[in-house]
Amino acid sequence: MSFIKRKHQKDDDLGFGSTPIIKNQRMLNSDGTANIERTGLPWFKFDDTYTRLVTMSWSRFFVVILITYLIVNTIFALAYNLIGIENLNGAKGLTPRDQFFDAFFFSAQTISTVGYGHISPQGFITSCLAAFESMLGLLAFALATGLLYGRFSRPTSKIKFSKKMVIAPYKDGKGLMCRLVNLRRNQLIDLEAQMYLTFNETIEGKETRSFYPLELERDKISILSLNWTLVHPITENSPLFEKEIADLIVAETEIFVIMKSFDDTFSQTIHTRISYQDEEIEMNAKFQKMFFHNDEGRMVLDYDKLSAIEILE
Amino acid sequence: MSFIKRKHQKDDDLGFGSTPIIKNQRMLNSDGTANIERTGLPWFKFDDTYTRLVTMSWSRFFVVILITYLIVNTIFALAYNLIGIENLNGAKGLTPRDQFFDAFFFSAQTISTVGYGHISPQGFITSCLAAFESMLGLLAFALATGLLYGRFSRPTSKIKFSKKMVIAPYKDGKGLMCRLVNLRRNQLIDLEAQMYLTFNETIEGKETRSFYPLELERDKISILSLNWTLVHPITENSPLFEKEIADLIVAETEIFVIMKSFDDTFSQTIHTRISYQDEEIEMNAKFQKMFFHNDEGRMVLDYDKLSAIEILE
Amino acid sequence: MSFIKRKHQKDDDLGFGSTPIIKNQRMLNSDGTANIERTGLPWFKFDDTYTRLVTMSWSRFFVVILITYLIVNTIFALAYNLIGIENLNGAKGLTPRDQFFDAFFFSAQTISTVGYGHISPQGFITSCLAAFESMLGLLAFALATGLLYGRFSRPTSKIKFSKKMVIAPYKDGKGLMCRLVNLRRNQLIDLEAQMYLTFNETIEGKETRSFYPLELERDKISILSLNWTLVHPITENSPLFEKEIADLIVAETEIFVIMKSFDDTFSQTIHTRISYQDEEIEMNAKFQKMFFHNDEGRMVLDYDKLSAIEILE
Amino acid sequence: MSFIKRKHQKDDDLGFGSTPIIKNQRMLNSDGTANIERTGLPWFKFDDTYTRLVTMSWSRFFVVILITYLIVNTIFALAYNLIGIENLNGAKGLTPRDQFFDAFFFSAQTISTVGYGHISPQGFITSCLAAFESMLGLLAFALATGLLYGRFSRPTSKIKFSKKMVIAPYKDGKGLMCRLVNLRRNQLIDLEAQMYLTFNETIEGKETRSFYPLELERDKISILSLNWTLVHPITENSPLFEKEIADLIVAETEIFVIMKSFDDTFSQTIHTRISYQDEEIEMNAKFQKMFFHNDEGRMVLDYDKLSAIEILE
Repeated sequence: MSFIKRKHQKDDDLGFGSTPIIKNQRMLNSDGTANIERTGLPWFKFDDTYTRLVTMSWSRFFVVILITYLIVNTIFALAYNLIGIENLNGAKGLTPRDQFFDAFFFSAQTISTVGYGHISPQGFITSCLAAFESMLGLLAFALATGLLYGRFSRPTSKIKFSKKMVIAPYKDGKGLMCRLVNLRRNQLIDLEAQMYLTFNETIEGKETRSFYPLELERDKISILSLNWTLVHPITENSPLFEKEIADLIVAETEIFVIMKSFDDTFSQTIHTRISYQDEEIEMNAKFQKMFFHNDEGRMVLDYDKLSAIEILE
Repeated sequence: MSFIKRKHQKDDDLGFGSTPIIKNQRMLNSDGTANIERTGLPWFKFDDTYTRLVTMSWSRFFVVILITYLIVNTIFALAYNLIGIENLNGAKGLTPRDQFFDAFFFSAQTISTVGYGHISPQGFITSCLAAFESMLGLLAFALATGLLYGRFSRPTSKIKFSKKMVIAPYKDGKGLMCRLVNLRRNQLIDLEAQMYLTFNETIEGKETRSFYPLELERDKISILSLNWTLVHPITENSPLFEKEIADLIVAETEIFVIMKSFDDTFSQTIHTRISYQDEEIEMNAKFQKMFFHNDEGRMVLDYDKLSAIEILE
Repeated sequence: MSFIKRKHQKDDDLGFGSTPIIKNQRMLNSDGTANIERTGLPWFKFDDTYTRLVTMSWSRFFVVILITYLIVNTIFALAYNLIGIENLNGAKGLTPRDQFFDAFFFSAQTISTVGYGHISPQGFITSCLAAFESMLGLLAFALATGLLYGRFSRPTSKIKFSKKMVIAPYKDGKGLMCRLVNLRRNQLIDLEAQMYLTFNETIEGKETRSFYPLELERDKISILSLNWTLVHPITENSPLFEKEIADLIVAETEIFVIMKSFDDTFSQTIHTRISYQDEEIEMNAKFQKMFFHNDEGRMVLDYDKLSAIEILE
Repeated sequence: MSFIKRKHQKDDDLGFGSTPIIKNQRMLNSDGTANIERTGLPWFKFDDTYTRLVTMSWSRFFVVILITYLIVNTIFALAYNLIGIENLNGAKGLTPRDQFFDAFFFSAQTISTVGYGHISPQGFITSCLAAFESMLGLLAFALATGLLYGRFSRPTSKIKFSKKMVIAPYKDGKGLMCRLVNLRRNQLIDLEAQMYLTFNETIEGKETRSFYPLELERDKISILSLNWTLVHPITENSPLFEKEIADLIVAETEIFVIMKSFDDTFSQTIHTRISYQDEEIEMNAKFQKMFFHNDEGRMVLDYDKLSAIEILE
């Protein structure tokens, strides 16, 4: 495949450089992050912990919280036993195992600031440790609050794209199309989209990864009320003009869609990225209609139809 | 009604597409959201919960909190009874009903981390459950904090528009006007407004929903100190030129006002949308003056006058 | 005073309209808010409470918190007494006064979730009320957290302007100048400033409040490291050209400075407004130098000199 | 050194003014703040406390928290002793020292709202103080929550620059280069960079600090996936054209890099600044390649190579 319309090439390679893809490797992962491995990076225990805790899945998050709670209480339980279980007034355990659990539950009651008081500290060192643990409890609590709020207030849009792109009839010619909806109740406004084509080509005898912008018929809308179909008209000026799917596969083609929107509900700018590889492009198909009027004359948007495609003859 | 000045049409259909309105249906609800039904969407229990809890009314929010508190305590009370009420030291209830309430109040004291201690857990399983419940209490607390902060810090402007638009004398001709004030103490700056006209019309034999921008005499102001009257001068270039109210009704006309402002008090960008339908436009009227100088020479803004209209002969 | 250079007038009247000032009244208060009274506004108890609690002074904020705490505990104390003080196990008060205080302190221990337990609830209704109060305590706590964070994270810049403006020699002519510094440790970047002149004048026989932009010699800087002196060169094109202080007084002149900056420490856009009235303009003076090199060659900025002026002959 | 190409000078001196550097003093510290001392500033105890607590290091932050906790409890312990230790029911200390610690631990249990209850307040004044302390505990807790969240949610990018700049072969000539990576997992997008040259020169007989922008071959990228090498081509138009390192040293040269990026993970704009002094510029060297393809064809970025330089003959 040779793309001769070099005038289309912008200098923006999206930060990927011009090293060609050598095996069938996505440049963008499905979550919009770059498909790149990192080495030589120190294990940033503290710096990235917050980011990790905020971006991990909810189930994993709760497991981390629970395990941390168990570990911290175990450490304090061992410490209380080390100092002497007799300093825990009301602890009735006689075997080491029972004494450990007495101390463990006392620790849990202290760090959560419940403090029933049927077990209570006495003696200087135990009292000190309990006072320290309750302070730690406050801080841990504060941290959990920040984490939960951080998780909820993150600008995570649930913009969902159709699984495939189609090359469908458009005006007098054809157009490359994908479409998207907003899965969340958040109101999205001021949407902007850009489409890029990237593939390997030989320029001046050197294998290079090229990036071409694909002009959109409409690249912004004010409110995302229904679905939005992004259309790149395949005119003479398009780098996709008269290309076949075989051309795209040979050149390790990938199409990027970069979107910017504003979440009106939480006043946040949201960036979304997705990429389609050659096998995710349907050469002769069109999207089925996604909305209709119901009996009251109200428009209805059917999310099940997002990726519904009709193959054309 | 035929609007021939097609040069005014922008490509921005505000994301509503060009499907005509078939019955008298608003496109924008009174809260600025699109009047659209959604189907085929899975019941996003977890994803949208935060958004729902943050956007619902205060009274409903507190009811949800209270009911959740009752349900969670009931579940734990049942669990404590199942394990054996004899493991709750200090619980004096003799009948199952009293034992349930002993466990219920113990649960409430644990989850809220009050922990008076006149009832206290003993035995391994009950102690474990109480330790778990107090941890849960911390997290619930953290969640409530985030929710309350999220509710308060949301960019909800209280920009209030006049109930009706008027077509009033303006310069040598007429102008379509609405006006607005800021009901909150927050300082609003850098305000921008856009006005759009939308109606059904027949283009090339096809019933279509058209969108025309209505040019404003002034579309931005620096500070919203007083009221702001938006004026679209109905000149020859206006799609409303020489139109009558009957024309507007036939075409299912709706006028959108889209505003952007910056809340200086909380450093947030705020978007506001409102729409007026044909019956909300007064053809020959003008707004009454909303502010005056008091005896000390200070300007006074009278909010009661916001929608006050004077019918003209 | 007649300003004939009408070409300078922009359509931006900063949202104040064109009603002339009739007595010596500032348009902008010293805190940058508009000097306008509001009537006809319902007493927005709930809507504005958060804004008020976040924007009031710290001392007032703590007084409000303390008084609320006292009132809430008093109400609950009365309720516990009404239900029957005998349901508070451990309350030893014999006189009504002592019984009230027993209930009051029990309430305080419940709402703060301390729960010592030397007083504990018994009986269904009292236990219910205590469970409800502890839930309320959690929510109140959550609210306080949000309020404190809201107060601290508000974009309050401490940009301080010189008390007076001066008309000082500038290049071959004169310039209207004021200067400013950043009082806080927050790093301010990307600063932009605009200056406006407003005064009463008679246009087509009608007394009008006019607004003229005053061009600045430099209207943006990248980092506010030292002080920043805003200079409007009084050239032939300036509406201030060959005006005397007497002219300014007659016309109720006010000069607005509107600034936008970005707080790099907290990632927030900050808007600052200030106005100078005629008596705050020194006709023939210049600012003293505000910074010098110390012995190590390091630049030193002396904040005491911010408003230091030298009167010229 | 004389830079004659004055057409390159912009009016932006980055807010540093034009006072020349007299000794070898950086203008920008390594953390991107301006190297300037401030005097005449009142000791802003309250205003800057939040900023200080949010920007200080984690270790220092925890020490401050711990010390505050100790001091507050000591003060309350003294107060309880002053009122009379006999009002603390359950305090068994006989010596003044033991009585102080009883009161100290009671205070800790109250302010952290643990409230075991083995020590409990009695008498009006002690109960009042305990009620007040528990309210204070809630507020302190709320404050800690806000501080921790404020610390974590601060827009602190970990953009790391190469230790040195190099002047390497670029196209047909040479280019001044530095490079950078993102050390954190946060996704950085929409990056923009500017480069400035500043040095002392004599203009019209006056020693002046001049600022010249250095044009970049590419000044924005969409996503920071790999490393980014900033290149200023040293063409005829560059103020660095045919300059030697000796020239740079004499003129107290410093090169500023100012970057703006958007943290997609937390929806925040991030500004980064760095400066290189003359001795941090390598005249004839180039950067080693930082990424390679691993066996699966995936790109690998090696952070250890960030500052790796190859000296050229």
